Amino acid sequence: MRQPSSSSEGLLGPLFSSPDVEQELSDTALLHALLRAESALAAAAAQCGIVPSDAAEAIENACRDGIFDLAALGAQGESAGNPVVPLVRALVAQVPESAKPWVHYGATSQDILDTALMLLARNAGRLVVAEAASAVGAAAALADAHRGAVMLGRTLGQQAVVTTFGLKAASWLTALDAGGSRLASALENEVAVQLGGAAGTLGVLGSGGPDVARAFAAALGLVAPPLPWHTDRQRILALAAALGGVVAAAGKVALDVELLAQTEIGEVAEGGDAAHGGSSAMPHKRNPIDSVLVRAAAYRAPGLVVTLFSASQHELERAAGAWHAEWAPLRGLLSLAGGALTRVARLIPNLVVDTVRMREDVENTRGLVMAEQLTARLAPMLGRTAASDVIARCCEHARRSGRHLRDVALADDTVRSHLSAAQIDATLDPRAALGAVDRLIDNAVAQSALLAPPRSGS
Amino acid sequence: MRQPSSSSEGLLGPLFSSPDVEQELSDTALLHALLRAESALAAAAAQCGIVPSDAAEAIENACRDGIFDLAALGAQGESAGNPVVPLVRALVAQVPESAKPWVHYGATSQDILDTALMLLARNAGRLVVAEAASAVGAAAALADAHRGAVMLGRTLGQQAVVTTFGLKAASWLTALDAGGSRLASALENEVAVQLGGAAGTLGVLGSGGPDVARAFAAALGLVAPPLPWHTDRQRILALAAALGGVVAAAGKVALDVELLAQTEIGEVAEGGDAAHGGSSAMPHKRNPIDSVLVRAAAYRAPGLVVTLFSASQHELERAAGAWHAEWAPLRGLLSLAGGALTRVARLIPNLVVDTVRMREDVENTRGLVMAEQLTARLAPMLGRTAASDVIARCCEHARRSGRHLRDVALADDTVRSHLSAAQIDATLDPRAALGAVDRLIDNAVAQSALLAPPRSGS
Amino acid sequence: MRQPSSSSEGLLGPLFSSPDVEQELSDTALLHALLRAESALAAAAAQCGIVPSDAAEAIENACRDGIFDLAALGAQGESAGNPVVPLVRALVAQVPESAKPWVHYGATSQDILDTALMLLARNAGRLVVAEAASAVGAAAALADAHRGAVMLGRTLGQQAVVTTFGLKAASWLTALDAGGSRLASALENEVAVQLGGAAGTLGVLGSGGPDVARAFAAALGLVAPPLPWHTDRQRILALAAALGGVVAAAGKVALDVELLAQTEIGEVAEGGDAAHGGSSAMPHKRNPIDSVLVRAAAYRAPGLVVTLFSASQHELERAAGAWHAEWAPLRGLLSLAGGALTRVARLIPNLVVDTVRMREDVENTRGLVMAEQLTARLAPMLGRTAASDVIARCCEHARRSGRHLRDVALADDTVRSHLSAAQIDATLDPRAALGAVDRLIDNAVAQSALLAPPRSGS
Amino acid sequence: MRQPSSSSEGLLGPLFSSPDVEQELSDTALLHALLRAESALAAAAAQCGIVPSDAAEAIENACRDGIFDLAALGAQGESAGNPVVPLVRALVAQVPESAKPWVHYGATSQDILDTALMLLARNAGRLVVAEAASAVGAAAALADAHRGAVMLGRTLGQQAVVTTFGLKAASWLTALDAGGSRLASALENEVAVQLGGAAGTLGVLGSGGPDVARAFAAALGLVAPPLPWHTDRQRILALAAALGGVVAAAGKVALDVELLAQTEIGEVAEGGDAAHGGSSAMPHKRNPIDSVLVRAAAYRAPGLVVTLFSASQHELERAAGAWHAEWAPLRGLLSLAGGALTRVARLIPNLVVDTVRMREDVENTRGLVMAEQLTARLAPMLGRTAASDVIARCCEHARRSGRHLRDVALADDTVRSHLSAAQIDATLDPRAALGAVDRLIDNAVAQSALLAPPRSGS
Repeated sequence: MRQPSSSSEGLLGPLFSSPDVEQELSDTALLHALLRAESALAAAAAQCGIVPSDAAEAIENACRDGIFDLAALGAQGESAGNPVVPLVRALVAQVPESAKPWVHYGATSQDILDTALMLLARNAGRLVVAEAASAVGAAAALADAHRGAVMLGRTLGQQAVVTTFGLKAASWLTALDAGGSRLASALENEVAVQLGGAAGTLGVLGSGGPDVARAFAAALGLVAPPLPWHTDRQRILALAAALGGVVAAAGKVALDVELLAQTEIGEVAEGGDAAHGGSSAMPHKRNPIDSVLVRAAAYRAPGLVVTLFSASQHELERAAGAWHAEWAPLRGLLSLAGGALTRVARLIPNLVVDTVRMREDVENTRGLVMAEQLTARLAPMLGRTAASDVIARCCEHARRSGRHLRDVALADDTVRSHLSAAQIDATLDPRAALGAVDRLIDNAVAQSALLAPPRSGS
Repeated sequence: MRQPSSSSEGLLGPLFSSPDVEQELSDTALLHALLRAESALAAAAAQCGIVPSDAAEAIENACRDGIFDLAALGAQGESAGNPVVPLVRALVAQVPESAKPWVHYGATSQDILDTALMLLARNAGRLVVAEAASAVGAAAALADAHRGAVMLGRTLGQQAVVTTFGLKAASWLTALDAGGSRLASALENEVAVQLGGAAGTLGVLGSGGPDVARAFAAALGLVAPPLPWHTDRQRILALAAALGGVVAAAGKVALDVELLAQTEIGEVAEGGDAAHGGSSAMPHKRNPIDSVLVRAAAYRAPGLVVTLFSASQHELERAAGAWHAEWAPLRGLLSLAGGALTRVARLIPNLVVDTVRMREDVENTRGLVMAEQLTARLAPMLGRTAASDVIARCCEHARRSGRHLRDVALADDTVRSHLSAAQIDATLDPRAALGAVDRLIDNAVAQSALLAPPRSGS
Repeated sequence: MRQPSSSSEGLLGPLFSSPDVEQELSDTALLHALLRAESALAAAAAQCGIVPSDAAEAIENACRDGIFDLAALGAQGESAGNPVVPLVRALVAQVPESAKPWVHYGATSQDILDTALMLLARNAGRLVVAEAASAVGAAAALADAHRGAVMLGRTLGQQAVVTTFGLKAASWLTALDAGGSRLASALENEVAVQLGGAAGTLGVLGSGGPDVARAFAAALGLVAPPLPWHTDRQRILALAAALGGVVAAAGKVALDVELLAQTEIGEVAEGGDAAHGGSSAMPHKRNPIDSVLVRAAAYRAPGLVVTLFSASQHELERAAGAWHAEWAPLRGLLSLAGGALTRVARLIPNLVVDTVRMREDVENTRGLVMAEQLTARLAPMLGRTAASDVIARCCEHARRSGRHLRDVALADDTVRSHLSAAQIDATLDPRAALGAVDRLIDNAVAQSALLAPPRSGS
Repeated sequence: MRQPSSSSEGLLGPLFSSPDVEQELSDTALLHALLRAESALAAAAAQCGIVPSDAAEAIENACRDGIFDLAALGAQGESAGNPVVPLVRALVAQVPESAKPWVHYGATSQDILDTALMLLARNAGRLVVAEAASAVGAAAALADAHRGAVMLGRTLGQQAVVTTFGLKAASWLTALDAGGSRLASALENEVAVQLGGAAGTLGVLGSGGPDVARAFAAALGLVAPPLPWHTDRQRILALAAALGGVVAAAGKVALDVELLAQTEIGEVAEGGDAAHGGSSAMPHKRNPIDSVLVRAAAYRAPGLVVTLFSASQHELERAAGAWHAEWAPLRGLLSLAGGALTRVARLIPNLVVDTVRMREDVENTRGLVMAEQLTARLAPMLGRTAASDVIARCCEHARRSGRHLRDVALADDTVRSHLSAAQIDATLDPRAALGAVDRLIDNAVAQSALLAPPRSGS
């Protein structure tokens, strides 16, 4: 049997990941990123006059064209506690004698590994933001298309009052937009190169160290931090929170879809081809598989977020374990976010929305979901308590008798002494309760950051 | 025995909290905030012509001057699942008949409770930011005062290379500044009123609902959101992450202090009065109590952060449990942040920094911490591998013989064939390894957001 | 306004707690437990001939009858990092001169506080176990009463195949029994006295130290550990996991109730008085409040469990923060478990089970939920694939036409060539699919530990 | 570049895993376990007379000898939400026509996947227990060898009183033993087969279903549960807690080693070959790499534990996401436990213990660590407060003057009026404070479960 070669392969991997994102997170990608970091460091130091240009060029060539045995590097890394030590050894072996002293010059393993992980985060994170933007666009389309599609609002699992499907989609939009743009902002502002040398002093590079750090950042397109952040993990926390947040936004969509797709509600269904969600044992059944998998991601992400927060306490000039503990959950969060956002970005536009059933479900309450409106309509005339009491009585009556609240209200002396039949009808019309919906949907679209044309420079 | 009346009292509460912050988080504060929300809602609706001005005024008066039995409201809230239901009942009972229908008009319990919790978060959060700013200021002062105070950098618990205490303080500054300004930004951008009515449609308020929401926000000084966020909890997540982040920044300071205060290192000690940290059983001992308590907060905060991320999945138009699950961890995080930042803001300026001992500890390595510099100095001449080998041999020799690396190097033929005694001395001078420190410290101070004069309007 | 005096009071406390359990967890209870620990220690040391009997008696008297100002002790505890230091001072002040040296003899603050927290855990934990046992009993009664009550099984939110409500209740039983008996076992085996002195050596007590520890445990009815466990927190982890587990078991019941109580399903409802779950704004609505609050507890507990696991890494002979971090989450877990189990223990027996609606919902599938049985019946004759295909076709036909699967199957030539009408009827009879249910329910009851009469000695 | 083929390969995988354990957790192992489950199910059903023997035999053969494309199964699993659906299809394709209907007979995907994961847990878990037992044995040997090796006990980072290294090792022993035997117990009692069919009723198998379940369990050597546990996840929680606990126990050892290996303390060092822990940049440095990596595991495990607790709320008859969320953290915990316990099992016996330096560090306190003993010795004569005061004064004097506490005490009139020089000497002898140590170490060894010869039948 062939073994999986990345997290998007294998028996279970494909269920939670996105192949594009995994490609940016694989061990191969990490090795490339480590080499890019070594290469950019040499170039930056050369640019600042610290490393000879020839040496830098030789290092850049070796980083690009050298031969590196990923498995061997991993195996050799164990006794050093990280794979950079053997990687540097392998790199030194592949440059001319004159360049050897300048390999990894001024850096420590953490500098290279932190920077490489930031490259992965940036590359994978951008794909996640793109998927989030795509999901936001799809949600905006749904919100617009269904802005007047009346449906039941459900609170604590109970039918409550009417809303529209468009407003629900707008709420998905708002959350995905907040999550996605917070991630975009973290990628732009927090994803920095790390360069500090053995203890964060840039000691070997001398007073030109900060210039090298800036050139290093420019070469890689990452943020240049004011200080080395080897034991200040605020950037990791910001990234973790943003990733956890965007997964949460995706999870909320999936949760709503799963709930509305319950057989007894059946107001939406996942689209996609016929195979999607079929059950071999139960041919009558169609499972909301993408929703289920996105919900699974939403269960898993918080545990990775908490690990990064717990591992934020780095001792003195290098943590004895907390740093190493960051690697897997950070890649894991990026992977989960990739899988979740990719799925939600296809789930939303493919969603089968049954507006007829939504409307029928509203009708089937026989006016009970409009009871609040009737109470509010009567309250200024009867007083709140009396209005509540009379409508509660009507509701109870309607429930027991199976009649429509309208008919019960029409037959109620107290109600009729204040409202005409036309007024009762108007009050019980679901659309009457939805005066603000259009404006709310427009607000959500107008204030979306991810729908806006990209700012120049970002 | 008298029972504690807030989280800053009791047997254990005082260890983790700050009285000022607790005052903003107490049940009394929550009750006031709930009433402020009801009051502001009535005023906003009146301003928009929806609620009669007389009624709004009567409601505002009752919210301000009415009698509310906190314990009774709490007890009555259980059958409703929240205390707003009985509070509204109590409020209705205390306004004139004509105002009764307009109490809580257009709102649902979650609107009032979410808004009240945001008021608490804003008020308590601002105190936390102020403490963070104070800690940042103290760290900047330490960084400046000790910018040249040479000390050992320690990585994985091992003495590594030299750094300065000022640079360490600058790193504390940077993390506290990032954490504190992220919290300030969350308070400014995320802490919004919630107003949506039973299902987030603003149904009862009609098409003017969004105007009421905006007036409501203005009255309370909170953000006006594009949409009701009753089931979009991104704001809560942003707040949770910011609070978790600022506690993490405080925890890192405490961790460093605790480690440097170890008896065997003793390079810093907590200041404060004589009672602070004394041990009755062991009179020779002085415990870094503030550090210990801040570290405890740093252990506790991530568990509250994860709860808020896990509870971010709110079903349809109101969550059946996830919403209720937010209340305690959100207040808990604010409380922990208050306690931790208050402590760290007094810990840093009071810190007793023993620069003499720091310098002695550097000297006691007999040059070994400067070995990296010597290797780097020789590498361009000998090649990296050969330079490493020769210095490793010298170090081993120095370690075994108890001699200074300088003396061993001076006696080593290979070293001496490339470096003069003066060059060896210069290379082994700790200050030679610290060329970038001044610039780094200046960077940290210059880029601090919390040290900057407050922007107008914020 | 009067402030709450325990976690079961206040505006929000009553929603998550149980007054009985809170009484065992209050600060008053903690103070009593600290004094009981000091008292038992003196008695134990006297029993072992280490402390003079007179002194021990005086200490016991002072612990029982002395005056201790809880708020003052809390306030004074801050500079020591715990309240035991001032408590010991207060205790010393209230014993005769001759007894003063023997107060707290051989102990350190952690010994007393750990032991006191174990007393709280034991006392509160037993109440939780009793509630779990009560819930198990109620679930067993439901399982028995409804063992044949056919209902739809729902997987991934989709109607799948038939089950019975009794089997569901048996599954609640099994989980509550596992969770409750694991907690009972943790209380019996893990809840130990802590006694080690300043560094866990029992140094001051000399070679008789282990005897004092044993007598101390006997006096308090707690486990005598082989070693002091001041930095071995396995006991805390076992307790945390057991508490988290029992809350999870309660949460599963609440989740099922909430889902089955959805308006569209309505197969169960929470019982209780009329006020329970009513909504002032929506008189037609009845919220499953106990379920919602238990679900909230199930969201909150894992965050406290993770804190205790994260805080399990205690440095050398006393942790610098991790120990202090345990106190609140441990009490918090006990409190949440108390609230959750109390609610679920009243929720289950009060549950309104609508077996008529359950049966109707099965009928309303028009035989589709029995499709799996029909496939299985045909598979040995047709081969699995062919059987699946033919039944899938029948299901699709039934779904589109709105006819009963029975009628479609009767009209299908392939089906009819292998099965008679009577065979089809028998296969589609929901009861035919439930042959194992009685045995499973009997298994669950028979293997329950909490239903069994208590073992002697436990 | 070649990609890693299991979690123990790759760039970072080797740092956290153990090759032996990974082999039991790989996707290949999972595929084999899925096939073993299908095979055992067929055999069990045949044994109970439900499936024809010929069919069962054919299925068993195909499970053993068939061709299964792991990557293809994974890819195909996505639309079904799990890999069992395509696996069953592939299996059906490889059995004779007559056996096809009996493949997967009576089972649902979750039955097979849950059972397969339990096989992985059992197999990997046993290796973890074996490593824990090995670590316990090594700790017992250390405890015995160093039972009298006096060293400083350190609390809150401060030198406190004396202890022995043997007692510390005994405390490691106790925690590893508790953690390891709790895991062993979970493997023995909780790791059960899952068999319930589509909704946990064993519907297709009829009244003989429970017998099939029992035979299925017997065939696989797993526990036979009273009921299907498809939505009762107490077993997973017990396993998660046990794994989290054993990692915590390992982490505590690593933490102590890392702290005692700090350059300034240097009382222990990791052993192993010369390459282990070397730093290329800093030849004078030797990093405690195994400790660092085990500490990293201890940071990571709680986040996986919390995921499993959060994902314990499974809806009705199958969870829409929570089940899927379990797979990765469960395998992740087993993997982390494997890596951590393997490392700690080699770390302990290889530990370089510098008892000379331990003793010197005690001496270097100039008697101050014995101050508590002197206070206790004087308390019965002077009263506690006066004794404390006089010794505190002596300590302060000793600290300032650099003299030995013995000399200061000898010169103190109050002390001398109650104690002779010999009494002072005896009291300040570190060994005098360690009377209980031997008994405690013997207790720890005697009460260890993992040191005991295995019970028959387990």
